[in-house]
Amino acid sequence: MRIAGLEHKPDRLAVTWDDGAVSEYHYVWLRDNCACPECRHPDAWERTLDPLTVPPDLAGRAENGEGALHVTWPDGHVTAMTTGWLRDHAYEPAARAARRRPAQPWTGAEITTDPPVFAWSDVAADPGARIRWLRVVRDRGFAVLTGVPTEPGTVLEVARLISYVRETNFGLIFDVRSKPDPENLAYTPVELHPHTDLPNREALMGLQLLHCLRHDAVGGESVLVDGFAAAAALAAEHPEDHELLATVAVPYRFVDDDNDIEWRAPVIGTGGAGETTEVRYHSALLAPLDVDPDLVGPWYRAYRRLGAILRRPELHHRFRMRAGECQVFDNRRVLHARAAFDPQSGERHFQGCYVDYDDFLSRLRVLERGGADFRQR
Amino acid sequence: MRIAGLEHKPDRLAVTWDDGAVSEYHYVWLRDNCACPECRHPDAWERTLDPLTVPPDLAGRAENGEGALHVTWPDGHVTAMTTGWLRDHAYEPAARAARRRPAQPWTGAEITTDPPVFAWSDVAADPGARIRWLRVVRDRGFAVLTGVPTEPGTVLEVARLISYVRETNFGLIFDVRSKPDPENLAYTPVELHPHTDLPNREALMGLQLLHCLRHDAVGGESVLVDGFAAAAALAAEHPEDHELLATVAVPYRFVDDDNDIEWRAPVIGTGGAGETTEVRYHSALLAPLDVDPDLVGPWYRAYRRLGAILRRPELHHRFRMRAGECQVFDNRRVLHARAAFDPQSGERHFQGCYVDYDDFLSRLRVLERGGADFRQR
Repeated sequence: MRIAGLEHKPDRLAVTWDDGAVSEYHYVWLRDNCACPECRHPDAWERTLDPLTVPPDLAGRAENGEGALHVTWPDGHVTAMTTGWLRDHAYEPAARAARRRPAQPWTGAEITTDPPVFAWSDVAADPGARIRWLRVVRDRGFAVLTGVPTEPGTVLEVARLISYVRETNFGLIFDVRSKPDPENLAYTPVELHPHTDLPNREALMGLQLLHCLRHDAVGGESVLVDGFAAAAALAAEHPEDHELLATVAVPYRFVDDDNDIEWRAPVIGTGGAGETTEVRYHSALLAPLDVDPDLVGPWYRAYRRLGAILRRPELHHRFRMRAGECQVFDNRRVLHARAAFDPQSGERHFQGCYVDYDDFLSRLRVLERGGADFRQR
Repeated sequence: MRIAGLEHKPDRLAVTWDDGAVSEYHYVWLRDNCACPECRHPDAWERTLDPLTVPPDLAGRAENGEGALHVTWPDGHVTAMTTGWLRDHAYEPAARAARRRPAQPWTGAEITTDPPVFAWSDVAADPGARIRWLRVVRDRGFAVLTGVPTEPGTVLEVARLISYVRETNFGLIFDVRSKPDPENLAYTPVELHPHTDLPNREALMGLQLLHCLRHDAVGGESVLVDGFAAAAALAAEHPEDHELLATVAVPYRFVDDDNDIEWRAPVIGTGGAGETTEVRYHSALLAPLDVDPDLVGPWYRAYRRLGAILRRPELHHRFRMRAGECQVFDNRRVLHARAAFDPQSGERHFQGCYVDYDDFLSRLRVLERGGADFRQR
């Protein structure tokens, strides 16, 4: 990409590219993003420029250099930016829209026909396969690995391919099997309807890994539901209910002898632009509702409607995990469920752990970058 | 507290207490919070009642039992709740307001006169002292411990008094000292203006611990600023700037050879009721602004004004950390800064780590509960 023309406006610079597109950059933006060794530490690669030294009415003189834009500021400081970097960071509405990567919602039938499955031997050995696997987790919200060794603790090896493990009150690893005196319902053989894990945490756990070590019991099939698709269905069928679940913060709480972890958040999280960013739904952990009394009746109705949508079989991806398989799913988007099982009929033992979502995206970006210099990106 | 009267309304029950207060409970709320062994697992203490079986137009017959309310539902199920629990969970506006605990903002002068200081020997040995320490951290946003052993790694012992350590790309523990090829500016001797750590993380690190092992260098004084007080000053002086910083999500990013961790959030986080919940400010990590072009100029002006407020000396608590002291501060509220120091003049070595905020509040609740049965709370 080359610069075809420059126009100095009072508060910004208009760059016409050789494909005819025009990008405008405010002078304060250009100055703030100067990457010279004085303005950005060359090792730490953090900004050292003091933003308080940049006056709001700053203007500079720009010139079209060789593959770069050069801007000279009133104090004589010169900022140089490659045209590639500049074009990549354009922020006119069309450029921002082009960088957006919307989630790809799914229903059960379509995903069950062609479920995303990857071989452990591939993703462990080949960075290219790892990128393909993590992109599917990002865009579809889950994928299943096959051929993972069934040695206990191996789920940590899978997690380390992605990033750091987030320790919780259930440990670095948690063992999902039926046991006496269970600390939570997952450690019983009962049916679990679609739910989000740990909705009582401020930062909703990002990725959840569930590694099947043994599955000889009758029952215990896995179900995954795209919560974003469910939220969209609620918005289409009962917009007022969607609005309530997206705006009223409600308390979730987990409590035992050593913990009392509570957080308040809306069931449906939305970003500034109104898109769904998370679904936080788990009836087992809803604490006594503590909201405006006029909202109690309507909120329960809305919550019940979302719960009913989440149980629609047509939204479900239903499958049986076999020993050596490991699910990785986005816990803020994809709700999981399991059928009841008979603990007398055979063993069922999964191990799981969590990875923060921003750590996961970081790993994917670093893999995609390959060995390229991060200073250019 | 005793029940003086009961009135059955169409969708709710009005309870008149013997002090004259009236609390109303919706039938769907009462049914949802039934804690009998059928509705809540007695070990896991999670709800097993299926919310989809509770019709929105449910009504029950209530009776005043001995220290408890008994409600009989149309299907014959009986819910019993102690009057103490019921009163504790009332949700009329006055009851909700009484449970709110507003932050206690401070300015530099007042806190410097009487800074919150606790002895390590007390908080390590005595649960009562630990409660007092953690309450101050919760309400004032920071406290300093004295007499912490200067053995490297001891900061983990301090953290374990609170909860789990959150591992990051900087490790479980990070070493703050001047070094060659620094990964971030903290590992240089330069001045750091007030900032939030790791604003590029989705879940802003909750508590930060900074333990001083050696401090012989000239310079390097610590500064803490109450970000909530700074946000309030901006709202009072330039409400339109506060509005911009509280609504426009901006990208922060940390990048090196192994990481590329980026998140977008407003600089000032606000809850549903408009109160400040976090300040996320660190000019070193602001990524190229990627917002509506019309907002670029106004946003930079607002950001600069907040930055200027954060540097007002009258807001600063300025002090010198000595070997054996450990700061614990709320990284979402209290911004920290440090003066430049001369690495030739002596050693300056701190070790730090992070603890999630909800884990911290959990520990405080468990300590406050003492040995009491959590099922009653």
